[in-house]
Amino acid sequence: MKKIKLVVAYDGTDFSGFQRQPGKRTIQGTLEETLSKITGEEIEIYGSGRTDAGVHALGQVCHFTTKSPIPITKYPYILRRALPRDIICISSEEVPMDFHARKSAYWKTYRYYIETTPVPDLFTRRFRTHLPFPLDVDAMQKAGKLLVGTHDFTSFCSTKTVVEDRVRTIYRCQVCQEANGVYIEVTGNGFLYNMVRIIAGTLYEVGRHERNVQEIPQILAAKDRTLAGPTFPPEGLILFEVGYTPWKESASNYLSM
Amino acid sequence: MKKIKLVVAYDGTDFSGFQRQPGKRTIQGTLEETLSKITGEEIEIYGSGRTDAGVHALGQVCHFTTKSPIPITKYPYILRRALPRDIICISSEEVPMDFHARKSAYWKTYRYYIETTPVPDLFTRRFRTHLPFPLDVDAMQKAGKLLVGTHDFTSFCSTKTVVEDRVRTIYRCQVCQEANGVYIEVTGNGFLYNMVRIIAGTLYEVGRHERNVQEIPQILAAKDRTLAGPTFPPEGLILFEVGYTPWKESASNYLSM
Repeated sequence: MKKIKLVVAYDGTDFSGFQRQPGKRTIQGTLEETLSKITGEEIEIYGSGRTDAGVHALGQVCHFTTKSPIPITKYPYILRRALPRDIICISSEEVPMDFHARKSAYWKTYRYYIETTPVPDLFTRRFRTHLPFPLDVDAMQKAGKLLVGTHDFTSFCSTKTVVEDRVRTIYRCQVCQEANGVYIEVTGNGFLYNMVRIIAGTLYEVGRHERNVQEIPQILAAKDRTLAGPTFPPEGLILFEVGYTPWKESASNYLSM
Repeated sequence: MKKIKLVVAYDGTDFSGFQRQPGKRTIQGTLEETLSKITGEEIEIYGSGRTDAGVHALGQVCHFTTKSPIPITKYPYILRRALPRDIICISSEEVPMDFHARKSAYWKTYRYYIETTPVPDLFTRRFRTHLPFPLDVDAMQKAGKLLVGTHDFTSFCSTKTVVEDRVRTIYRCQVCQEANGVYIEVTGNGFLYNMVRIIAGTLYEVGRHERNVQEIPQILAAKDRTLAGPTFPPEGLILFEVGYTPWKESASNYLSM
């Protein structure tokens, strides 16, 4: 018996989210079906976390166990031929039996992309929220910095959130200007339901001068979802990277991007 | 009565090509249906040419006539809200009544994108042909230059081609190295059925050293489709720009790209 860790990327547009659901096209369901065919075993996939319908990933991490003699390094190649084109297996490696894609993760990085050009870009439209209005990136950056630290994020999660403990640590929150818009990059030790999409909606309102930077600590302190901004749509959100060593700046593979 | 010229971009992946066909999702059909709803008239669209199923466009040009009082500059905005997300109207302008999207065109530019990285890129996979092998771009460039000029392109069009006159002029054929692969850019006064996809397949074989650069003049001279390379898949092909003034380098809007 071996435990295998896969890094997968997907275009979430045509999936009903990560989690397996009967009769729906999901990432987990598609991976399980494909790996079961390849190995001849009934494979169960564990992800680092669920992504919602329409949310994408560049660095989602999954694990599964198998007795298959397939050499571990061959999985990306075999999966590339067997999976539909909107899921890509980036890498595979054997991990100790006590590794768990979700429980062993120390941090995750998400990016939320907002495109501000007058005309949406044809090539990136599936991965961007298009809002053709100017943004004050400096103000957004300042507001983002106020989210860094250990806080109760009740104001920044869906009212449908069931977990009791809403204290999470944000290690890093950057707002970056690009040629066609901005992206918000958030790294934290865990994220509540819709948390990044609500952070994006709130920082967006700061960028539009509909809110002041100084409101952020008040919103956090109030623990009241109605005080934060709207839940932004899923298409702009990408699960970028999952880390399995404690966070420090050098822990990310992507800092140079 | 006014004549309106539209520049449209589309992701051809989920369309059965440009030309209207009963019961199929096509660019022409979608534009006609949407414009008919907007204007309350029965709108007929004329394109600069058909693109095949799966082929994309960044600068397809269409025209239509209408009595609608809608200000001409409003069309991109109105269409952006009314069209599905995989067709984008980039610009609109009133043109003289003798303008014709196809007949008035002097030249067209296509790009064919080949991605050569080991792992396909999630964001661009709909717009690239993925072939993870190294290419000799210099050799491809030399072979491309031998296509420039006025030739009978019988060897470079589908055997299903019905037009008798297969003489076309290629003004420019460039092969450009990008971070993730190469693209072939071809500008000509007209293109036969599958011509750019066969040029791409032939230059690809040159890039793989499966063919010599010197074969190109022989293939052209033989007027025999079997001598050229394979018809490459539609997903790598983009109709980039259509020109309505005689070709010269400065006639293109995109030379700086």
